[in-house]
This record gives sequence, structure tokens and C-alpha cells, in this order.
Amino acid sequence: MLTEYPIVYVLDLVGCAVFAVSGALAAGRKSLDLLGVVVIAVVTAVGGGTLRDVLLDRHPIFWFADTAYLWVILGAALATTLFARRRTPPLKALLIADAFGLALFAVSGAQIADKLGLPWPIVVMMGAMTGVAGGALRDVLTNEIPLILRRDVYATAALAGAGAYMGLKALAVGDLAAALLAMGVVVALRFSAILFGLRLPVFRLRDE
Amino acid sequence: MLTEYPIVYVLDLVGCAVFAVSGALAAGRKSLDLLGVVVIAVVTAVGGGTLRDVLLDRHPIFWFADTAYLWVILGAALATTLFARRRTPPLKALLIADAFGLALFAVSGAQIADKLGLPWPIVVMMGAMTGVAGGALRDVLTNEIPLILRRDVYATAALAGAGAYMGLKALAVGDLAAALLAMGVVVALRFSAILFGLRLPVFRLRDE
Amino acid sequence: MLTEYPIVYVLDLVGCAVFAVSGALAAGRKSLDLLGVVVIAVVTAVGGGTLRDVLLDRHPIFWFADTAYLWVILGAALATTLFARRRTPPLKALLIADAFGLALFAVSGAQIADKLGLPWPIVVMMGAMTGVAGGALRDVLTNEIPLILRRDVYATAALAGAGAYMGLKALAVGDLAAALLAMGVVVALRFSAILFGLRLPVFRLRDE
Repeated sequence: MLTEYPIVYVLDLVGCAVFAVSGALAAGRKSLDLLGVVVIAVVTAVGGGTLRDVLLDRHPIFWFADTAYLWVILGAALATTLFARRRTPPLKALLIADAFGLALFAVSGAQIADKLGLPWPIVVMMGAMTGVAGGALRDVLTNEIPLILRRDVYATAALAGAGAYMGLKALAVGDLAAALLAMGVVVALRFSAILFGLRLPVFRLRDE
Repeated sequence: MLTEYPIVYVLDLVGCAVFAVSGALAAGRKSLDLLGVVVIAVVTAVGGGTLRDVLLDRHPIFWFADTAYLWVILGAALATTLFARRRTPPLKALLIADAFGLALFAVSGAQIADKLGLPWPIVVMMGAMTGVAGGALRDVLTNEIPLILRRDVYATAALAGAGAYMGLKALAVGDLAAALLAMGVVVALRFSAILFGLRLPVFRLRDE
Repeated sequence: MLTEYPIVYVLDLVGCAVFAVSGALAAGRKSLDLLGVVVIAVVTAVGGGTLRDVLLDRHPIFWFADTAYLWVILGAALATTLFARRRTPPLKALLIADAFGLALFAVSGAQIADKLGLPWPIVVMMGAMTGVAGGALRDVLTNEIPLILRRDVYATAALAGAGAYMGLKALAVGDLAAALLAMGVVVALRFSAILFGLRLPVFRLRDE
């Protein structure tokens, strides 16, 4: 499991921090107050993993047992309100950090579901969901259509990463190598999307 | 239990397919991309049963153990994006199929809650929720006030069906007969609503 | 535990009734039909406690075992549709009752999480969430940005109350005294907010 490596624990917290920042920025765009900012930051950062744990009946929920998650998220959210007021946040840097967070969450989510012996399509879905559900909840709470449903190569990247992990495992690739390669897939897809504007076709219905 | 009969398993999958189509159409109305369409289709089709399983602590969630659900939903969603582009979807046919899906989900949801020995008002609620929560989630994700809260004889039909099931059981009607009659109640109410525009009174507050 | 005292059970039901009324009024503002009113009332009243029970893996969910909750909520919702049509609801009285409901839910939610031996920051969060999540769900379903994210001294009061409970316990104050004092904190903060317009600073991002 990725979660056995100390570096992964650190990356996990970094992923939470990045997601918390994106939550705080979304809250700022809606003029929420300080507590609203913190709530949205927490939901964005831990929403995906919490939903995964509830659906897979894993208790305690991952961030209940280890309060480091909560402190990191609080710190990131408050730092965002302090700094973002003064100058435009470095969006490109955030998108890059976010790509790594998404990669880690999607692949470690898939690993967790895989250990429980679930069928592979469910494992792939749980992985992708771990990566993107927090952002979707952020958007629902701030009254937006979830961005992941529109900015496709985001959820697609999470899905591809979780799928790559399962595919590589099926090819007898070792667990760590499969996880790292799968994370590479997510990051590569996200970078392509950010740099070249990669997109999936849109399904548009004419109003009847 | 309804779920013991092979025909019910087939109907269950048909119900998922119909709900997936309604999700995909809603996604198309919001110009989501292909993955967004699939996500909304999955949520619409399995959302009610998933919420039921989480609230009742039934694990694994019903569609985790049997991937047929996921494949049927994927197929229905993709078929919708292919065909709905070319011609107006046959809405009347869909509404009729949807009435049967709703009937099955509401009554089988009530059966599941009843087997767990819950009090009857909770059983009726769980049944109705199994039928309608997926559609409500679809509407929340596409940023609409859930249709079921407005188009009343939808949730009302689910509630009436789940209630009829419990009422008939209390009258010592056999399980299968009670389930079929209760499903008939749902379908009859939905058909009345579709054909005659049956509606519940609306509660409208003047702005203070 | 607060829940051992009969008076607390009564207050708990009163809290549900008050939250149900606030849900029904919100539904009325959106012109939902009768069933929609009941659904929103139920979600508002039991949403926070249900989410708490799911996240903490407490089964059966608190209102599944005791149908008194459901009947009280139904009665409150229907009474609201009858009376609110005729005359403006006594909003001040409702706000005061709501303050006591919030206080009770936040502190009893914290007690429940504390008994499970969770770390104190998680206990405080679970308490606050028990108090405010129902209202947040009400706002999401009626397509509003949750009020608690904007009207800050609401969630803040819940958070302060749950925090006060844990602080007083750490100071070796008895359980009942700590709970009552913590509830006083919530009520005092809400009254200050209602009477003097107490507010937290807002975090507003300029559009980039």
C-alpha cells in the first residue's frame, strides 16, 4: 500500500492542503465568512476519502483517527484567506500541486478498494471518486454545477489513473511500481489538459 | 423478497437503465461532457439504493458486489448520448418505463427495510427514498431544485407504494402479492399523473 | 449523557420540531408541494444527526429506532403549512427556539462523539456538524448557498458550544454541568447575533 511509505503520508497531507486551498478560494469567490471558508476547505479536502470510507464501511473515517489532516487543512485555509486578499494566488502552481494531489488520492483510493477484494470496475470508480468527490461537494455547497462534470480531463484523469493501476496489477507489475506509474498517468493527463487545453466531447441536448 | 425472482433482477437492471437514461438526458440539457454524463447517470440510477444501504448499514452496497449494474448503466448512458443527439428521445415511453422502475425500487426498498425489523413509518420512508433519492441527487448535481420536491405525484407515488406494501402485509396478504399490488399502486398513480396531470396542492409563502 | 434525562428527550423533540418548521418555511419560499415540504422538514430536522451517525458508524440511525421523531416532524411541517399561509410566522420566536435546538444538538452531538473516544478536534467538529448540517442540506436542496456558510455566528455558535463542552470536561467539570454551560454558550452567542447583529469577517476575493 502507498500509505505505508512516510513520503506518501506527507504527500497525502500536501494533497489535503492543496485541496483546502482550492476550497478556500472557491469560498472567497462567493464571499463566505471565515467559518464558511474553513467548512468548504475541510469538505473539499476530505470529502472524497470520507465518501469512500462510508461506502466501503471503513471505520473510523481516515481523518478521525489522525488529527494532522484537520490541522493541515485549517492552516491551509487560514493562510489562503490571509494571502489571497493581498495578491492573486499563483493559480498555475496550484494547478500543478493539485495534479499531484489528485493523482495520489485516486491511486491510493483504488488501492484501498482493491485490498477489500471488490471487482475492478468498482475499484476504478472508488479511486476516481476519492480524487474528485471533494471538489464536487465544494461546488454543490457553493451552488455551482460541479466543475468535474464539465472540465472533463479532471475526472477522466482520475479514472485513467485508477484504471492504469488495476491494469498494471493485472499485468503482474509490483504494487509500488503500478501505483507510481498510475500516478504518472494522472499527472501527465492533467498537465496535458492544463498546457494544451485537452478536452472530452460535450453532450449538448437542444431544448425540446 | 422480490429480489429472489430472476424476473425481478431483470426488472431491477431495467430500472437502473431507465434512470440512467433520465440522468444522461438531464446532463445533456446542462452541456456536460461525456464523463459528466456517465457520472450523472450512475448517481441517478444507484443513488437511492446506495443511500438506503448506507443508512441501513448494509454492506457491501448492492452494486459493489454485482458489476452488471455498472455495465447496464454505462451502456444506457452512452446509448443515450448517441441516439438523443439525432432525434428527440421518446419521452412518453421513458416516463412509462420510469414508472415501472420507480415502482420496483420503492417496493423492493421497503421490503429490504422491513426485513431488518424497522418500524413501519421508517420502512415506508426508506422505500420511497430508494425510489426517488437518485433523481434528487441528479437534480442537485445539475444545480436544480429536485424535481421530486415539485412534481409531487412522483415521490407521492413512491410513498404510496411503500405504504401499500406495508398495509397489505399488515392485512396478512402474502409477500409477493403485496409487492405486486403495491407496485401496481405506484404505476397507477404515475400513469394518472402523466395522463391527467394529477398534482398535490402547492405551499407558497408570500415574501415577507 | 444528556440523552439520559427525560427533559432532554423532550428538548430533542422540540429541537426537531423547530428545525422542521424552518425547513417547511424554506420550502414554502420555493413553492414546493406538500410532500416536498415534508421532505425538506425531515431533512432539516434529522440531517445533522443522521450524517453524524453515518460518519461515526452508529446504527441504527437515531430516528429509525424511535418513530416519535418522525411524527413530531410531520406534525410540525403540516402545522406550518396550515398556519404560515394565514399569517406571518413569528420569526423572532422561531429564532429563539432555534437557538435552543442548535445548542442541544451541538452539545449532545459532541457528547456522542466524545464517548466514542475520538480526538477532541473531531469531537468539536462532529458536535457543530450535528447542529448545522440539517440546515445546510435544506439549503442545498432548495438550491441556495447554505446559510450557515454565510450567517456566521450560527455555525460559529455551534462550534463554540461543542468546544466549550470539551474545554469544560478537560477542566474536570462534571458532564451535566459542562453540557449545560456549553449550551448556554451557544444560546448566548445566537442571542447576541440576533439582537446585535454580531458577525464574523467575510473573505471576499476580487474576480481575477
